[in-house]
Amino acid sequence: MNTLGLALRISTFGESHGAGIGCVIDGLPAGLKIDEEFIYSEMQRRTPGRNIFSTQRKESDRVEILSGVFESHSTGAPIALWIANQNQKSSDYKEIQNIFRPSHADWTYQHKYNIRDYRGGGRASARESAARVAAGAIAKLLLQEIGIEFQSGIFSIGETCTEERDFTFAKTSEIYALDSKIEESFKKEILQAKNNHDSIGAGAEIRALKVPLGLGEPLYHKLDAQLAAALMGLNGVKAVEIGTGTNVAKMRGSVHNDSILPHGFSSNHSGGILGGISNGDTLVVRIYFKPTPSIFLPQQTLNSKLEPVEFSLKGRHDPCIGIRGVVVAESLVALVLADMAILNLHSQLSAFKQFYNSIHNPFSGGKI
Amino acid sequence: MNTLGLALRISTFGESHGAGIGCVIDGLPAGLKIDEEFIYSEMQRRTPGRNIFSTQRKESDRVEILSGVFESHSTGAPIALWIANQNQKSSDYKEIQNIFRPSHADWTYQHKYNIRDYRGGGRASARESAARVAAGAIAKLLLQEIGIEFQSGIFSIGETCTEERDFTFAKTSEIYALDSKIEESFKKEILQAKNNHDSIGAGAEIRALKVPLGLGEPLYHKLDAQLAAALMGLNGVKAVEIGTGTNVAKMRGSVHNDSILPHGFSSNHSGGILGGISNGDTLVVRIYFKPTPSIFLPQQTLNSKLEPVEFSLKGRHDPCIGIRGVVVAESLVALVLADMAILNLHSQLSAFKQFYNSIHNPFSGGKI
Amino acid sequence: MNTLGLALRISTFGESHGAGIGCVIDGLPAGLKIDEEFIYSEMQRRTPGRNIFSTQRKESDRVEILSGVFESHSTGAPIALWIANQNQKSSDYKEIQNIFRPSHADWTYQHKYNIRDYRGGGRASARESAARVAAGAIAKLLLQEIGIEFQSGIFSIGETCTEERDFTFAKTSEIYALDSKIEESFKKEILQAKNNHDSIGAGAEIRALKVPLGLGEPLYHKLDAQLAAALMGLNGVKAVEIGTGTNVAKMRGSVHNDSILPHGFSSNHSGGILGGISNGDTLVVRIYFKPTPSIFLPQQTLNSKLEPVEFSLKGRHDPCIGIRGVVVAESLVALVLADMAILNLHSQLSAFKQFYNSIHNPFSGGKI
Amino acid sequence: MNTLGLALRISTFGESHGAGIGCVIDGLPAGLKIDEEFIYSEMQRRTPGRNIFSTQRKESDRVEILSGVFESHSTGAPIALWIANQNQKSSDYKEIQNIFRPSHADWTYQHKYNIRDYRGGGRASARESAARVAAGAIAKLLLQEIGIEFQSGIFSIGETCTEERDFTFAKTSEIYALDSKIEESFKKEILQAKNNHDSIGAGAEIRALKVPLGLGEPLYHKLDAQLAAALMGLNGVKAVEIGTGTNVAKMRGSVHNDSILPHGFSSNHSGGILGGISNGDTLVVRIYFKPTPSIFLPQQTLNSKLEPVEFSLKGRHDPCIGIRGVVVAESLVALVLADMAILNLHSQLSAFKQFYNSIHNPFSGGKI
Repeated sequence: MNTLGLALRISTFGESHGAGIGCVIDGLPAGLKIDEEFIYSEMQRRTPGRNIFSTQRKESDRVEILSGVFESHSTGAPIALWIANQNQKSSDYKEIQNIFRPSHADWTYQHKYNIRDYRGGGRASARESAARVAAGAIAKLLLQEIGIEFQSGIFSIGETCTEERDFTFAKTSEIYALDSKIEESFKKEILQAKNNHDSIGAGAEIRALKVPLGLGEPLYHKLDAQLAAALMGLNGVKAVEIGTGTNVAKMRGSVHNDSILPHGFSSNHSGGILGGISNGDTLVVRIYFKPTPSIFLPQQTLNSKLEPVEFSLKGRHDPCIGIRGVVVAESLVALVLADMAILNLHSQLSAFKQFYNSIHNPFSGGKI
Repeated sequence: MNTLGLALRISTFGESHGAGIGCVIDGLPAGLKIDEEFIYSEMQRRTPGRNIFSTQRKESDRVEILSGVFESHSTGAPIALWIANQNQKSSDYKEIQNIFRPSHADWTYQHKYNIRDYRGGGRASARESAARVAAGAIAKLLLQEIGIEFQSGIFSIGETCTEERDFTFAKTSEIYALDSKIEESFKKEILQAKNNHDSIGAGAEIRALKVPLGLGEPLYHKLDAQLAAALMGLNGVKAVEIGTGTNVAKMRGSVHNDSILPHGFSSNHSGGILGGISNGDTLVVRIYFKPTPSIFLPQQTLNSKLEPVEFSLKGRHDPCIGIRGVVVAESLVALVLADMAILNLHSQLSAFKQFYNSIHNPFSGGKI
Repeated sequence: MNTLGLALRISTFGESHGAGIGCVIDGLPAGLKIDEEFIYSEMQRRTPGRNIFSTQRKESDRVEILSGVFESHSTGAPIALWIANQNQKSSDYKEIQNIFRPSHADWTYQHKYNIRDYRGGGRASARESAARVAAGAIAKLLLQEIGIEFQSGIFSIGETCTEERDFTFAKTSEIYALDSKIEESFKKEILQAKNNHDSIGAGAEIRALKVPLGLGEPLYHKLDAQLAAALMGLNGVKAVEIGTGTNVAKMRGSVHNDSILPHGFSSNHSGGILGGISNGDTLVVRIYFKPTPSIFLPQQTLNSKLEPVEFSLKGRHDPCIGIRGVVVAESLVALVLADMAILNLHSQLSAFKQFYNSIHNPFSGGKI
Repeated sequence: MNTLGLALRISTFGESHGAGIGCVIDGLPAGLKIDEEFIYSEMQRRTPGRNIFSTQRKESDRVEILSGVFESHSTGAPIALWIANQNQKSSDYKEIQNIFRPSHADWTYQHKYNIRDYRGGGRASARESAARVAAGAIAKLLLQEIGIEFQSGIFSIGETCTEERDFTFAKTSEIYALDSKIEESFKKEILQAKNNHDSIGAGAEIRALKVPLGLGEPLYHKLDAQLAAALMGLNGVKAVEIGTGTNVAKMRGSVHNDSILPHGFSSNHSGGILGGISNGDTLVVRIYFKPTPSIFLPQQTLNSKLEPVEFSLKGRHDPCIGIRGVVVAESLVALVLADMAILNLHSQLSAFKQFYNSIHNPFSGGKI
């Protein structure tokens, strides 16, 4: 149950304050060049401690490749990645050992499993998402081979929201803001929350460009369904939209339908997906992050004896999980697309025959 | 890829204008009483042609049980359900054989598979959702055994929206409206669209009550992720929200966090899920349906030779797919919960031991 | 759990004395011509009642295609097959309702599920294998497209055994005997057992020719592992051998190793599989069927009150399940190979790139 | 595809001469005490270099637990195990870089993936089986909780074979021989082969005692099918038998059928499985190992340019892979049984209800 994907599968393991976080990638075609520099650059986008808008916890986030790569290329064997933990302060968590932090997974893990690694949230910590970014980087390397590109950024923080989608600006913004004119307001929202010992929510958009027509497996592994599962499964995400999203409910069909014109679709309300299959247009997904549940203001909860207690958290936390979360989300979109791109190889008999017709008989006039 | 679920799996088959729609349910525990009356009553809630707000196409929607039930109880073998098609007018579709209807799956199916059963949308038709309701009814029978209850209804149609959640009223409303005071406005929105040969979108909410604490399999089959996949995979759904949904992005942690008090949670922004696991509170999910893509107004598209054409659809279509769609959505929520409820049996060693301790040795002082 | 296969999946349903036996085939590439005549001819090879060496029960075994085929070609949607039951005499089974037949599944189904469809063995009946043959026929149609051929036959019945492998003769032999000189002895073994109200075991070999190099997914879905699972899961099979099989234990490496020569392998002890992957040589599998557990001689068992009883079975049974079983086994080998052939499309980056490079952009200089 | 199991899943990674071998165990119930001493003792049974009958390669085989265990108990999170490689001599393999060793996976990996980690056989090396033993140890810890016990040993080496099954002796025998009177002959067979620079095959039997009635998921994940897949997937295994195995083909039903008597079965030809479900009797499985393909005698093969070459292997190899292989096989049987034991929790409605009835509402008279 710790595995994402059907043809390209990632299985992660590890806890926030254990030895590290790992990931096994299975199903990657052999022969892909594994560019460790690129993996590093992706990891840097998610890594904490880079500025005042994220937690001051430092994580080296160095990715070690344990298997599946030979002479810099994938071999078809599973690729295991390992990110050792560093700079954990388990002592920060001693005091929460016996309480259930509101809006955290403490309560549910304890009751589901009757045992809980309380150190830093254990398995439920966003620390695990480092593995998703590392694996997502490899998915991106695969998708780059067929021209797919990714864009992402933050369009809302708290009450501040923008319609602008300046993905070029977002790439260089400390907070991945999609609008250079609004970035300051975004930062203000974050810092105000932080200074109030509070936290704040955020909205993010991810796009994939040049997605080939045909990705997605109807009826129960549609592209939008797979994206929704991957993204809703990301810590703190409480809503997922494809294309026009919630606003479709207000529209009439004559407005919503994307006409098909000789040069392409007249609009993209569908977000690049029709009938659960990519239609060749840009993939557009939006997600909404709840405010970080770890706040320093006093809160009411129960302790492990189910007695009411008031407590205040300590430690180092992101005031807005959406900022680093959007990087993880983009990685997840890449993982889903890579998975669907591999599965799509099955769709037509002609591709099946073409593949086997191209297989060379290695024997010289032999019996095979 | 036509299978939903991990422990309780439904696999559907069939097309809109083929022989019928079928469903195989695998993984249902043996010994469940299969109440055919209940299945019938659930089917009636989705069935078209009951009033002017849905398509005038008639479907008998009689569910035949082909296997897996013996003396009215599940046997542990797969249960196959069959809903024969009736009243199809394939002739309605001859004229769309060579065009790609906008916002339909015609375009993507044709390009993915290079062959397309154009009759009534074929496999992509919402007709398939009849199987989901039939299977969902059986999931509900299982969940009734442990006390879970369902509620659902429509909270928005077009520009009209309500905050009211009168699920009791919704049960008897022709259009499953959640607000008796707004029902007429909802109907007006639908009929205006319909009279303009257009269609309209809708928003729906589904709740599950008395969900046990502990359902959901982190990290990659979290309860919210599974719900999002199932619901985003439903025809026409473009957004899924859990709990407070998109609005969490505007909130601060001090407002959003649900305090844990001796008698329960102080609020339910989480929608009953923490860390991907049910927290014991009411499950709250909202979805947003796009307007029916089949409209009678003229539209621009390409034909199968990729030439631009203008066309107007004929036939019988729901002016608002959300109405009947909410019934399917409720069924999908039941299927996901049943699946997660079965998987949750694995969680603790104590349950494993208790189960095997209770197994009786049938031999009298025998060697086993 | 009623599903076989990873990329090409068959899910069967139905019981011996229920409405019929069905099968859903999911994952078949679109565009395959579905030759119903061929399916019929395959079904005839397994059908009972054709001669005195099989049960006198008649089954029409007509396969109805319920979905997934449009204008005689697969569409990419699931193909459902239905074989209605006929000529059941459930009355034959009333008397076994309350006893556990030795070497049958009565005992284990009752204790696993606490409910049992006793009529004709219910789900555990070999009747279900009709669906495997129907699905196997479709797998063969796919594999014919890349040149794979199948051979099979019986090499031992009771104490009579042959080293001959005359697959051409076996095709026309009533009992699929692999040796025209031994066929009569085989028949004598069967009839002697039958006349003694007893039954007899059998050994069968299945070969696949022209299997492409590269099928099989190491390390946990190796080709030999998948074949072993499929074949050991066939009713009555108690042993599976690949290549030289059990005899390898007696050999030295210098004898067993198949040298690789310019024109092919010097021998085929490996049975066409190395490291779990097809090596391009002929695939060779042998299986061993237990004698039919349904015999007419008196037997000792327990009744449902766990009291000892002596009983004698009535009804119509094959005296040697291996005869019709070898046809099912060949179908299973085809299903496994088809599944592995589809999965193998994932193996190399070059195939992945070639596929996506060949996708045509349908828009004229458009934005996609 | 590097994953074994359905409910309890192990995914392995790593190559013979890479950084190490790893394993992720997912689906283990929370609360199991993880006894590292026991894991160590199991590893020692497989470890090479202990005597003259195995390779002289030393592997420390120290198992490091990277995740999923907290205060010595499983938490429900995936358990990652890591066994670092040591003492590899990659130089031994330089010379085989450009040849395909007969009866090895070199040929098939190269053609399937078009890239090959030739060092020590890479992913195809039996080195990977260390991970299976480590995971199998944890499966045994789970099964010990419900009383299941394991036995195994070698019953044939080359032409020497025994009917004796002295599992107590086998535990202490250097070569796991099942017969103290034949052990010397077994050793002679091995040493003669070794001294001739050759290798030898072996037959092994594994038993599981006190297996509860009801394990196995018909029809396509029967207990015997799952065992056959796991065992045939083990390096060098070419045949799998359940119960009486190949000999059933010679028998009549009246001899083969195991009568059910008040104190148990009269015999165990079925090997403890009926209809794919454990019947409560002892599970009996036999497997046959081919001789080690790595021999030092000169052999014919092709090089990477497909030219014929004669070569002689160097390095350190087991003269009989069956000896250490039987330990791995026992581990695989444990993994399959643990998987099936967890899945069997789903079988009956009564267990489902009992589980949820036992869940405590943590709130005091609260709304949940």
